[in-house]
Amino acid sequence: MRPVSIVATYQLPIRKRHDASLRVLGAEAVRGALAAAGLEQVDALYLGNMLSDELQSQKHLAALIADEAGLAGIEALLVRAATASGAAALRVGHLAVASGLVNTAVVVGVEKMSDQSPVLALAKALDARYEVLEGATMLSQNAQIMQLYCDQYGISPDRFAGFALNAHRNARHNPIALFHDKVVTEETVLNSRFIVPPLRLYDCAPICDGAAAVVLAPTDEARRYSDLPIRILASTAATDRFRLADRPEPLHLRAAERSARRAFQQAGLTLEDVDFFELHDAFSIMACLQLEAVGFAEPGTGWRLAAEDEIGLQGRIPIATLGGLKARGHPIGATALYQACEIVRQLTGTAGENQLPAAHIGMQQSVGGGGSTIITHIFGA
Amino acid sequence: MRPVSIVATYQLPIRKRHDASLRVLGAEAVRGALAAAGLEQVDALYLGNMLSDELQSQKHLAALIADEAGLAGIEALLVRAATASGAAALRVGHLAVASGLVNTAVVVGVEKMSDQSPVLALAKALDARYEVLEGATMLSQNAQIMQLYCDQYGISPDRFAGFALNAHRNARHNPIALFHDKVVTEETVLNSRFIVPPLRLYDCAPICDGAAAVVLAPTDEARRYSDLPIRILASTAATDRFRLADRPEPLHLRAAERSARRAFQQAGLTLEDVDFFELHDAFSIMACLQLEAVGFAEPGTGWRLAAEDEIGLQGRIPIATLGGLKARGHPIGATALYQACEIVRQLTGTAGENQLPAAHIGMQQSVGGGGSTIITHIFGA
Repeated sequence: MRPVSIVATYQLPIRKRHDASLRVLGAEAVRGALAAAGLEQVDALYLGNMLSDELQSQKHLAALIADEAGLAGIEALLVRAATASGAAALRVGHLAVASGLVNTAVVVGVEKMSDQSPVLALAKALDARYEVLEGATMLSQNAQIMQLYCDQYGISPDRFAGFALNAHRNARHNPIALFHDKVVTEETVLNSRFIVPPLRLYDCAPICDGAAAVVLAPTDEARRYSDLPIRILASTAATDRFRLADRPEPLHLRAAERSARRAFQQAGLTLEDVDFFELHDAFSIMACLQLEAVGFAEPGTGWRLAAEDEIGLQGRIPIATLGGLKARGHPIGATALYQACEIVRQLTGTAGENQLPAAHIGMQQSVGGGGSTIITHIFGA
Repeated sequence: MRPVSIVATYQLPIRKRHDASLRVLGAEAVRGALAAAGLEQVDALYLGNMLSDELQSQKHLAALIADEAGLAGIEALLVRAATASGAAALRVGHLAVASGLVNTAVVVGVEKMSDQSPVLALAKALDARYEVLEGATMLSQNAQIMQLYCDQYGISPDRFAGFALNAHRNARHNPIALFHDKVVTEETVLNSRFIVPPLRLYDCAPICDGAAAVVLAPTDEARRYSDLPIRILASTAATDRFRLADRPEPLHLRAAERSARRAFQQAGLTLEDVDFFELHDAFSIMACLQLEAVGFAEPGTGWRLAAEDEIGLQGRIPIATLGGLKARGHPIGATALYQACEIVRQLTGTAGENQLPAAHIGMQQSVGGGGSTIITHIFGA
């Protein structure tokens, strides 16, 4: 393979965008990223999106967005792994440029969740026959996992509050975050309404709209397009048994462990080299389980990292450094692209008030469904 | 890039499979292809499927099928380009192995269209806002294009009958074809009922269920898995303006021309080198337009190749050599994988009664929507 770098990024503010359509949001991110790279054209477009089939009645979205962005003619493919679709698109973009068959590519993620309720479409990330037919949704499955965790380790669900507090604190200095102007206290979190007990509102990422894009190029050509290119040091995907009931240890995200292990191997790095971790805090329990599965905490102790503020900007392993899924927002198929943009900000010293003092290696992870797919990327300057 | 070969294939008979679920069909194809390669494991699974969101309420199908096939743990991603989704998955499998980051991959296509009517879900390959809202479906758009063709060149729609006749004749010797046991005469075709005039039943591929898979490996390791590996000489995708109304020449499939031109360049071949062409005869008009766009016929004359049997097994450019989409069947996301399996049969001299005398180079092409995406592969022994 040839090494691949990110040479440009572009993020739209995450909002409820009743003023713009899905295609317009996606095309704006594409054009923004190309302009940032000083490019008018690229060879290919890879798209992350999960919900357009149901929410916008569109199953041919990559070609549609390529056209809307003025790029009709290029290769354009949609890549999916349910709630990890943005990372899946980044994975394919990386493969394409690494292969040498594609020289420059834009990877764009877009989701517009405010057009109609996404709850039923989101549940299709689970097993339609054996989980959804029994009543499962993404919310109920995460509530079930959280309850199991609390029972197994004998802790109160209140102990997860630190995840939301950290995310909201960090979002305050990120103007594109959905909750950039919201002050959230521990009291706010602990008194928020139950969604599905023990899940409270502040354990869950919000419904929102957004689009973000990165331009990829071969590392040895990256300086043509950027003064501060960022290398993709690893890109991996792994799966687990699909249904929660089939996993011998439902609190151990095996796909997170596998995907991270392969990523460390690919990058020639270890856990200790990772300076910060943009993980998939769609639910606070998922953030906790990822910290454990990847190795930042022992089983049953991931919540302590939040409770003791070890996930904060000054902590042992900063997460959600610009707000995370919880407070920056989680427009599903766009999320991993937002994370990639944020990691580029940290690694290039442009993260403003939230700049980490020593950011050399950043890791990103996305969770598909209840952990059936997990995708990891590692980036370095 | 490193060269990539197909080292094993597996096709399920195309039927209406009321006895088996989507996941079971997909997993059977995966296991069959792995067994044919003598493998128990591969590094990755890339899936082509278009309709599972609506027809099976499933949006996380790659991980589900990996698990069902006993491969939980591996990378598994879904790739989409509407009705060209199978070819899109093959494209990504090729990129993955070519990159060196993935060594062996299974590319599987699966579609189960008999669970409920696919008509509305199929229409989502078009523009929901500007085409479908005005009443367009895949059927009506192809009828519109066919009418335009007949008007522009002053020919009768009956002149397209040769496409169906060729496909059905070739399917008679392919036991896995949906219509393997059906005798179709010119009278059958010309007297068949109108679906959307001028489209008759025999201008349209049938609704059916199927799954097919290929195993990919680096060419320099291919003989470990196969005595007769087949090289992927080119893999390309291109787009056109998304909406039919935006194309200056709606009868010219520019994405087919672009994709084929890039493929010839990648393979270092010309049109004259192609011995047979497994094209996307979902509608007879699409077969005609591809023959013209790729260069096998001048504009307005593609139908002549069918009328004069130049597309037959002894003709100048054989197409649909084992039945094509029309008569082998067109389980959407699986179709390009069936085509790849058939090209391997021709190139390895195992196509039985339908064996072409001199089959050295085979080309495959898939059409997404009404031509917004077109994907081309070229294979050689």
